[in-house]
Amino acid sequence: MIEYRSIRVALLGAGSVGSQVARLLLEHGDELAARIGARIELVGIAVRNLDARRDADLPRELYTTDAEQLILGADIVIELMGGIEPARTLVLQAIASGADVVTGNKALVAAHGTELFTAAEQVGAQLSYEAAVAGAIPIIRPLRESLAGDRVERILGIVNGTTNFILDRMDQTGASLEDALATATELGYAEADPTADIGGYDAAQKATILASLAFHTRVPVEAVHREGITGVTAAQVESARRSGFVVKLLAIAERLRDPDTGSEGVSVRVYPALVPREHPLAAVHGANNAVFVEAAAAGPLMFYGAGAGGVQTASAVLGDLVAIARRHVIGGPGTSESTHSDVAVLPIGQIATRYSIMLEATDEPGVLAAIAHVFAEHGVSVEQLQQTVDESGKATLVIGTHEAKEQALADTVAALAESPVVASVASVLRVEGAV
Amino acid sequence: MIEYRSIRVALLGAGSVGSQVARLLLEHGDELAARIGARIELVGIAVRNLDARRDADLPRELYTTDAEQLILGADIVIELMGGIEPARTLVLQAIASGADVVTGNKALVAAHGTELFTAAEQVGAQLSYEAAVAGAIPIIRPLRESLAGDRVERILGIVNGTTNFILDRMDQTGASLEDALATATELGYAEADPTADIGGYDAAQKATILASLAFHTRVPVEAVHREGITGVTAAQVESARRSGFVVKLLAIAERLRDPDTGSEGVSVRVYPALVPREHPLAAVHGANNAVFVEAAAAGPLMFYGAGAGGVQTASAVLGDLVAIARRHVIGGPGTSESTHSDVAVLPIGQIATRYSIMLEATDEPGVLAAIAHVFAEHGVSVEQLQQTVDESGKATLVIGTHEAKEQALADTVAALAESPVVASVASVLRVEGAV
Repeated sequence: MIEYRSIRVALLGAGSVGSQVARLLLEHGDELAARIGARIELVGIAVRNLDARRDADLPRELYTTDAEQLILGADIVIELMGGIEPARTLVLQAIASGADVVTGNKALVAAHGTELFTAAEQVGAQLSYEAAVAGAIPIIRPLRESLAGDRVERILGIVNGTTNFILDRMDQTGASLEDALATATELGYAEADPTADIGGYDAAQKATILASLAFHTRVPVEAVHREGITGVTAAQVESARRSGFVVKLLAIAERLRDPDTGSEGVSVRVYPALVPREHPLAAVHGANNAVFVEAAAAGPLMFYGAGAGGVQTASAVLGDLVAIARRHVIGGPGTSESTHSDVAVLPIGQIATRYSIMLEATDEPGVLAAIAHVFAEHGVSVEQLQQTVDESGKATLVIGTHEAKEQALADTVAALAESPVVASVASVLRVEGAV
Repeated sequence: MIEYRSIRVALLGAGSVGSQVARLLLEHGDELAARIGARIELVGIAVRNLDARRDADLPRELYTTDAEQLILGADIVIELMGGIEPARTLVLQAIASGADVVTGNKALVAAHGTELFTAAEQVGAQLSYEAAVAGAIPIIRPLRESLAGDRVERILGIVNGTTNFILDRMDQTGASLEDALATATELGYAEADPTADIGGYDAAQKATILASLAFHTRVPVEAVHREGITGVTAAQVESARRSGFVVKLLAIAERLRDPDTGSEGVSVRVYPALVPREHPLAAVHGANNAVFVEAAAAGPLMFYGAGAGGVQTASAVLGDLVAIARRHVIGGPGTSESTHSDVAVLPIGQIATRYSIMLEATDEPGVLAAIAHVFAEHGVSVEQLQQTVDESGKATLVIGTHEAKEQALADTVAALAESPVVASVASVLRVEGAV
């Protein structure tokens, strides 16, 4: 058992994301310690009101209402309170006291990013905010680091899950905006007051953050042209569908030349727009998010995943936390590649997946039963079977299996090849990505 | 004009990626210096043969055949030679001499990653290899850092552009493998000897790298189960299409329990598989790559983009280079957010995009001409027009424009609303993402 030093982490806020962060820190402490080379010690969780403790599984003594006191003893502060104050003051206090900060607070970063980054840089503190945009999807780090040597020309983002759910539902079912919103509320995808989402305010904050990062400039949220989805009608969505388009609420940031002066500028805007069906963004369904980035050298890139949700967003917070903690330990981003655990690599015979088998057989009574029997005796369960017969009476069967062991499937195929009712096994393919 | 310190960079290899890296470093030196806080000085380019200099625009005095000598004077070494030797020896020499290393060499990382990471860690050197997998797509950094606090359960990757081009073409045109390969060769998507691609060897190397990183373990390339696409037939592709699937060459890495011992293991494999049409990977066309990651907390994520190409892959190399160089300057990943340039944010009236306008008009002779005239007099060019007339004689027009200025479009819409032939302007939507 390795004795790790410990890194003291204070958590501000215990809402849907914060409580998941606390749970994951406590449940996966050993695994995280091995990856970091230090143990994350959750020293406390600041909440406004002790009655608001969400997660009954977390030790009650971790909770405090004194955020300022909690910060003072922390190496890293995670801010997940939301809103501007007291979050802003507490983050500045954390930085001043020598802590690094992870925040998932988009309103704070959009409104006061420059102030916070400057404060952090002055004292050499790290400030990370992956969770502030597009939930679980890694987009801040790719823009900040992976594309740091490239030139981002344009970003088209679906960055609000609520509105994407609503527009997708209108597209899929022909529902009105009102009905789709009601469904979203019912299923928990929309808040009781959905104004921030359907009015495009949430997307505008994220657009500000993305544009500032991508273009290495400062874009005040007030400078973002913002239109929500409240005016989108079922007739528009239907007309779009007929013309090969889908309506999406986009956050757009692009480099432009000012047509009057010829000098370079940027445009940052949020509005519902028609997107061609063949565009990768058109395939973003439900409450998912995606950010489509066009860079001069890299060309088009897309980052896709869950844009919200407590545990999903907690993944982004923990990623930031681990990256910062590793720098505490080894002064770099961590080449954890050299500190391998030894997990066995299993041979192909041990995997289980679904299969599709194409056979040629004669079209006689009893053939199907004989084939089904071969599958059954090897423990491979058939999900579906399609038979087509040509003029000469030759039957082609396409058989889809439920999940089966590779070895069992191989034995089944060998037995089929020997079967008198099978002329030939034309094809065996595995099926992946099925739900 | 700020006086920057300089960081000395040696480039090993000047093939399609290396020559683009050199070009971008020279062309964008000022912009990169501002982002890094130091100037990247390209001190030399090592090539096997001076006759092989690809890019006539690069200063000829940069070239050398003495890679060992070049390394000695470098702060950062970029290795883009490909193959195992002499790349491995040179990277180890660079690390030993105190340099950080960026490599895009998948064969080297797949075969000798552990040796290199260990050597780097022992001396505190940084070793980055984003370009080794999936070209321009940021996937190494997201796995290494963004998901460092999460638990990756499964990766399904389309990581070889040549085979994806071939399979996509078979799917789209019904071509045989042979014909699709011939087209790929003709268009430059396949090499003269395509064995490494169509045999799945290239994908297996990338699978090794992804699995080792995602599961924090060591997966020798020999342990990867590998099947290429050589056995894929037009009949299989056609049958898959009829059943709602598409055939893709997948690199798969997943956590499993060993069914015999119950202990945890991983499976890493490459084979052509059926993917449901509605899966995000099914929409990856042509020579593009995508990596679909399922993590315990984050849920499903996908990273999409160009998997190859000199300039695209150079973007990934430069991202690694800038990230490393920033750590030379400020000892951290760089909060470049505080060092903003001041680029103007243009108002919405200055943007240009395409529009779709829905009008209600009376179905009379001359109406179309009158409406077309309104567009023309505001300098907005109509790309297409659809008219439908209901029983009452009320006509609905959907008009798609070419790219137009927002202000010109707004003026057009105002004039349409005033026009005696227009009953109402039912809808105005912008069109984004069209090619």
